[in-house]
Amino acid sequence: MKSSTTVYILIGIIVILAVGLIALLLFMNNQPDPNRGITPLVEIDPMEPDPEKWGLNFPNQYSSLLKTETNNERTAYGGSNPYSKLDTDPRLVTLFAGYGFSKEYNEDRGHLNSLIDVEGTARVGEKTPGTCYSCKSSDNPRLWDEMGMAEYDKTPFMELGDEISYAIGCANCHDAETLQLIVTNPALDEALQAQGQDWRTFTRQEMRTVVCANCHVEYYFKGDGKYLTLPWEDGKQIEDIANYYAELQFKDWEHPQSGAPMIKMQHPEYELFTANSTHYNAGVACADCHMPYTRDGAAKYSTHDVRSPLLNAETACGQCHTDVSYVTNRVSTIQNQVYETMIATEDAILAAISTIEAAGAESETDGGLLEEARWLHREAQLRWDFIAAENSMGFHNPEEALRILAAATNLARQAQLKAVQAAGTPDVIQSETN
Amino acid sequence: MKSSTTVYILIGIIVILAVGLIALLLFMNNQPDPNRGITPLVEIDPMEPDPEKWGLNFPNQYSSLLKTETNNERTAYGGSNPYSKLDTDPRLVTLFAGYGFSKEYNEDRGHLNSLIDVEGTARVGEKTPGTCYSCKSSDNPRLWDEMGMAEYDKTPFMELGDEISYAIGCANCHDAETLQLIVTNPALDEALQAQGQDWRTFTRQEMRTVVCANCHVEYYFKGDGKYLTLPWEDGKQIEDIANYYAELQFKDWEHPQSGAPMIKMQHPEYELFTANSTHYNAGVACADCHMPYTRDGAAKYSTHDVRSPLLNAETACGQCHTDVSYVTNRVSTIQNQVYETMIATEDAILAAISTIEAAGAESETDGGLLEEARWLHREAQLRWDFIAAENSMGFHNPEEALRILAAATNLARQAQLKAVQAAGTPDVIQSETN
Repeated sequence: MKSSTTVYILIGIIVILAVGLIALLLFMNNQPDPNRGITPLVEIDPMEPDPEKWGLNFPNQYSSLLKTETNNERTAYGGSNPYSKLDTDPRLVTLFAGYGFSKEYNEDRGHLNSLIDVEGTARVGEKTPGTCYSCKSSDNPRLWDEMGMAEYDKTPFMELGDEISYAIGCANCHDAETLQLIVTNPALDEALQAQGQDWRTFTRQEMRTVVCANCHVEYYFKGDGKYLTLPWEDGKQIEDIANYYAELQFKDWEHPQSGAPMIKMQHPEYELFTANSTHYNAGVACADCHMPYTRDGAAKYSTHDVRSPLLNAETACGQCHTDVSYVTNRVSTIQNQVYETMIATEDAILAAISTIEAAGAESETDGGLLEEARWLHREAQLRWDFIAAENSMGFHNPEEALRILAAATNLARQAQLKAVQAAGTPDVIQSETN
Repeated sequence: MKSSTTVYILIGIIVILAVGLIALLLFMNNQPDPNRGITPLVEIDPMEPDPEKWGLNFPNQYSSLLKTETNNERTAYGGSNPYSKLDTDPRLVTLFAGYGFSKEYNEDRGHLNSLIDVEGTARVGEKTPGTCYSCKSSDNPRLWDEMGMAEYDKTPFMELGDEISYAIGCANCHDAETLQLIVTNPALDEALQAQGQDWRTFTRQEMRTVVCANCHVEYYFKGDGKYLTLPWEDGKQIEDIANYYAELQFKDWEHPQSGAPMIKMQHPEYELFTANSTHYNAGVACADCHMPYTRDGAAKYSTHDVRSPLLNAETACGQCHTDVSYVTNRVSTIQNQVYETMIATEDAILAAISTIEAAGAESETDGGLLEEARWLHREAQLRWDFIAAENSMGFHNPEEALRILAAATNLARQAQLKAVQAAGTPDVIQSETN
């Protein structure tokens, strides 16, 4: 073989290898980002609060989110129509006497109304801490990142408002770069940690429930700094939460008639749903029913028009259940049973309040027994409110809801009995409050 | 055409018609009886009490029925092991004080033990009416037919026993000629009629539930003739039954401590299950779970080894549910919730009893208020017993069971309060019975 032939062969091999290498580099360079399925039209800044910017990349999700502003229909026991709960059930005025919720207590509207509604509530005033913005704005992830949650919570509500422009939006649940679901509320992150849980290890389906817990949980303001805290250190069931508050001797307010140190419960949807409910144990996530998969032509997406599944049951329940009218009848039966039981619990608590009040007015009343009666009032009412403030009229977990209401009624009647013992006379029982 | 040709053609036509007619008659004559699918090996006499005779035609059904004699296992909250309910929960001794069930109250064994067990119970004596045999023997359909139910019920238990040889068997639920499911208990027939229902118009699937109501219902003995009666005139829900007994001012016994006119509830499985339970509304029959379809080679039959589905969940629940361990866990969760609530109800009733007893012993007690307290005790306990005596620890209808227990607890505590008002002093509350 001539040496010139060998050289040509070598040059040929080198050229082939070079072309191959260049092709490989071009191929690798043109792969989509491994962290996202769809190449974005525009880049979204980390923790971008404006949902319109996210909407350029995700028009279906964004346009369905927009519907939460106006799609505010009422259901039999809830929905997102801002009706007055106090008008619907005047018992609440007495149950929450001495606290803001006795002055105004409206059903929440859809997500896009969160900011305008929190700023418009009669319960907000000069002393309101910034903490009250925690679940109301997509500016929060950015602000928590910049200020830290402790500083955020300490800032007065009126002052913090200058920093806040957007209602609940994309940044409350999604990472801007990867679009993955994330826990953004530091209080939830801390509460999960207190239970030995790390949401970063959760499956996608688990995340489709836990991101709702960014807001849909019971919470309280800890200490002078009003530090947002979920009371989960002992567990998430109502007895665990009651124990937690008892150990702290924490109260939201004092009831002016009974003198009891009270707790107001706040929308504990996540706690009730995850307490061995049949849907949760079967692997169903919040988003499966409240953000069901929807089609727009060839595109399938999770609707962001978050609302009661009863308002679009064919789509929401129909993802799993074939006979949707059977299912909605079932919901109705259960909610009627829970409502009936809940009203009986309220009447029992009202009887306890008036009896304790009358006992407190007697001169011979035993102070120690009266304190016991007050504590029983507190324990009864926080259990009742765990179900009353929860947005499903028990449907998220029917047996647990009824179990809790039965216990609450029992405690309320025991409060009434204890007040009679404290007063030493049954004259403190008003005849209309048996 | 020759006339002889015409004759031959006519003869031919007549022969063909005759042969066709004979063939049709033979075919019609050899059809199986339209009332039965299988031609029997032996004829069974109408209302034949001996299941062994039926067993010649139906060996699978019969051999599975035989298993009810010995297959008596216990489940977490029931089963068919004859354990003492009084030992398991000593509260029952006080709740049923003054009545036979405080002396002996055992879990029922399987169907083939019904006769030996009713004759062996300590609650049976000289005064026991024949009515007590009503659900215990396959001799009953024959005796009801021969004597009429009024005469049957009037006959003393000891005397009627001479006529009764067999435990529960085929004749209690089947017509001997057609094998169709039938209502044999005249009391059930009358109770359905009182509600405007006629079981003869029911579908087969409805019959697979209603035949169980031949026995698994609440009943009472009406009048001096101890006429077996189901209290359904106002409806089958517990409030309807309570109203019915209230209108009659009926009582089973008087509680010796509280003095209340009491009602004992008896296994109201049919009433609880049909009160809008999810399984009933979905078209599931008692037999689907308690007598699931089983294979013996090529034969498929409904097993007559009637027992708790928890003892053969793979077969029983697996007919509809793919994930059986999920289902049994769900049963366990629900039963634990109902049990916890039921025990709290019992404690509330015990507190009512001791408070009313103490009030009754005071000289200054208001008789009218004490009567009100006694009535509240009765109303609380009959509701509790509707769930306690029902054989599913609430699982046949979880939300309804918990709704009823919540109401029962409320009534028991109101009984206690009323007793305090009657006595005019809270000293009648014993400290250990709050």
